[in-house]
Amino acid sequence: LKPSAIRALFAVAARPEVVSLAGGMPYVTALNMDDFANTIADMIRKDGDVALQYGSGQGHPVLREYIREVMAPVGVACEIDDILVTAGSQMALDLIVRLLVDPDDVVLVESPSYVGALGVFTSYQADVRHVEMSEGALDPDSLISAIESAIAAGKRPKFIYTVASFQNPGGTTATQSRREQILEIAQRYGVLILEDDPYGLLGFGDYGTTKIPQAIRAMSQDVIYLGSFSKTIASGVRIGWAVVPAFLREKLVLAAESATLCPSHFTQFAVMAYLENHDWRAQINTYRALYQERRDAMISAMQTHMPNGISWTVPAGGFYSWLTLPEGLDSQDLLPKAVDNLVAFVPGSGFFVDGQGASNLRLSYCYPTAERITEGIVRLAEVIRAEI
Amino acid sequence: LKPSAIRALFAVAARPEVVSLAGGMPYVTALNMDDFANTIADMIRKDGDVALQYGSGQGHPVLREYIREVMAPVGVACEIDDILVTAGSQMALDLIVRLLVDPDDVVLVESPSYVGALGVFTSYQADVRHVEMSEGALDPDSLISAIESAIAAGKRPKFIYTVASFQNPGGTTATQSRREQILEIAQRYGVLILEDDPYGLLGFGDYGTTKIPQAIRAMSQDVIYLGSFSKTIASGVRIGWAVVPAFLREKLVLAAESATLCPSHFTQFAVMAYLENHDWRAQINTYRALYQERRDAMISAMQTHMPNGISWTVPAGGFYSWLTLPEGLDSQDLLPKAVDNLVAFVPGSGFFVDGQGASNLRLSYCYPTAERITEGIVRLAEVIRAEI
Repeated sequence: LKPSAIRALFAVAARPEVVSLAGGMPYVTALNMDDFANTIADMIRKDGDVALQYGSGQGHPVLREYIREVMAPVGVACEIDDILVTAGSQMALDLIVRLLVDPDDVVLVESPSYVGALGVFTSYQADVRHVEMSEGALDPDSLISAIESAIAAGKRPKFIYTVASFQNPGGTTATQSRREQILEIAQRYGVLILEDDPYGLLGFGDYGTTKIPQAIRAMSQDVIYLGSFSKTIASGVRIGWAVVPAFLREKLVLAAESATLCPSHFTQFAVMAYLENHDWRAQINTYRALYQERRDAMISAMQTHMPNGISWTVPAGGFYSWLTLPEGLDSQDLLPKAVDNLVAFVPGSGFFVDGQGASNLRLSYCYPTAERITEGIVRLAEVIRAEI
Repeated sequence: LKPSAIRALFAVAARPEVVSLAGGMPYVTALNMDDFANTIADMIRKDGDVALQYGSGQGHPVLREYIREVMAPVGVACEIDDILVTAGSQMALDLIVRLLVDPDDVVLVESPSYVGALGVFTSYQADVRHVEMSEGALDPDSLISAIESAIAAGKRPKFIYTVASFQNPGGTTATQSRREQILEIAQRYGVLILEDDPYGLLGFGDYGTTKIPQAIRAMSQDVIYLGSFSKTIASGVRIGWAVVPAFLREKLVLAAESATLCPSHFTQFAVMAYLENHDWRAQINTYRALYQERRDAMISAMQTHMPNGISWTVPAGGFYSWLTLPEGLDSQDLLPKAVDNLVAFVPGSGFFVDGQGASNLRLSYCYPTAERITEGIVRLAEVIRAEI
């Protein structure tokens, strides 16, 4: 275990004069706090003696029913028995890796991949291998080659970890046909898929209405699927979930009980009361519009202010754009200069375990206002231009 | 991992006609729900945009200040940097064991010991060894002999796990001089103590005022101490904590971040708002009086109704009495007959990993009313009498 790059940044980026394009904090201020307060107070008056008590290790059955509704737009169908509620989807990830991964087991991940997942994999001493991407998704030939070379060495990969929709940190999304190819390859070689989908409902424009990306889990019940209310309601409640194949279900519930006895009944009841009493689909649309406006501000500012030779992804949803510097520039060297110029980002190397990412930056547009984002990009462009 | 005896019982004991003396659910109904609802609603209106956000992996600094206040009556003094807030103290236990224990490492526990801790130890494949008790605490000679025999085999115990105050399931409490002996032995042999103290403030009579048992951690900063709001406020918030020696601190915070990113900010703010706006010491006194009344009902009913040859502990605090059957009776065999007679308990064997406990029962008086407890004991006495 070692401190992550993101962690070290939190202290710096917290200074109010710094525009932080570093953190991945959802803009929960967009919730109607007065309505939320009334809903929670009513819930406590009505159900307090149950909500404040221990609950089931697997999570409240009514909440699991709601979770089925929330997953319907991304095509995931399952029984409530297939769902485990956890203290954020990070906890589900941790428990699944604990059950599946022994030291030196091979785990295949995207390039780049979510830093919080890489931290879990390395903490269980997995042999983490990055697979090349093409068109914003795992490249089929590279995936086959990574699987075959692992199998040839007697180490069939335990799973492929993917954030297929609005990826953190890449800002990319796999096409439907690419999802089908990835699933076909995984099935052909008998490798599990671990699909992490915190942003699936946060697509912009058509990607949030008629073209919502369908989860890989929608095509196969063998896929392990992770979901979360952190970005659709609020990260502070720490309620996430896993949908797991039958072979893993009982073991996972027991591991969860051993880890925390049960997820917080109080926050589960808070989420249930919110889902019952509020138009949560409208709230998700509010979030989508907000993040789209901020993405637009970021992309537009980059088009206007970034020097030649810089490229970036244009995300169709989620929180992040992934920027690539010209040959020879290093984002870790850039960071202290950027912070001096009152803007923060996450260096790309944090999203790899193998030293890649030196020329990349993760830029998040989820939390600052559009005006602040524009100001932040202006400052970042100044630093990059000076460096070139 | 295998289902625990307690888990299997939850389903049975949940039927309303069964008097459950099995579960360890605090009687949170004793909270003033209307006041609590108002406090939480005010907190959301005032601090919602922070409370619903991600927070620090170590826990909110203001909550850690409050935790120092809450620990003062049991004599624990530390810096807020020494405290890690977790999703219940079970999570702190799980993380500490993950960091300290490799498969086959020796862990010393009481006889009997808390089933949830035994589950964690065995899930990490520890070599769990029960130490004999005397006068309701670890017996010094037995402890020395267990340590020496482990060391002689090249396996110095990783730690001694103890619930020294109002033990679960034994209902016993170590005297101050016994605490000193246990600490001296641990220090002499270089073995850590892991002190779990969920019930420390729930002593009856003098044990909750002038004679509150002082934590072993009060005597040495090398002791790892676990605390919880589950029994002093409400179990449903899932807020516990660990106080850890310097050598463990950074590793533990990193492990916690890897496991859940951060404890729920929302429930931390709920607890802070409660502690700020309510007379939490008075609420603890309410709980103490309530549990004392229920203990009295249980002990009195046992004195009246139990046949000769049965003995039980008379707890000075906490939730449990530990009953011993006459030679030849087995509490696991007794359980289905008891449930037929509409009373439930936990068989003693669940609190051992080595087959002991067949003639023991854990009886909890925390949740049913005094009248129901009396009725439950009458029913249990009938079943035992028939068995004899």
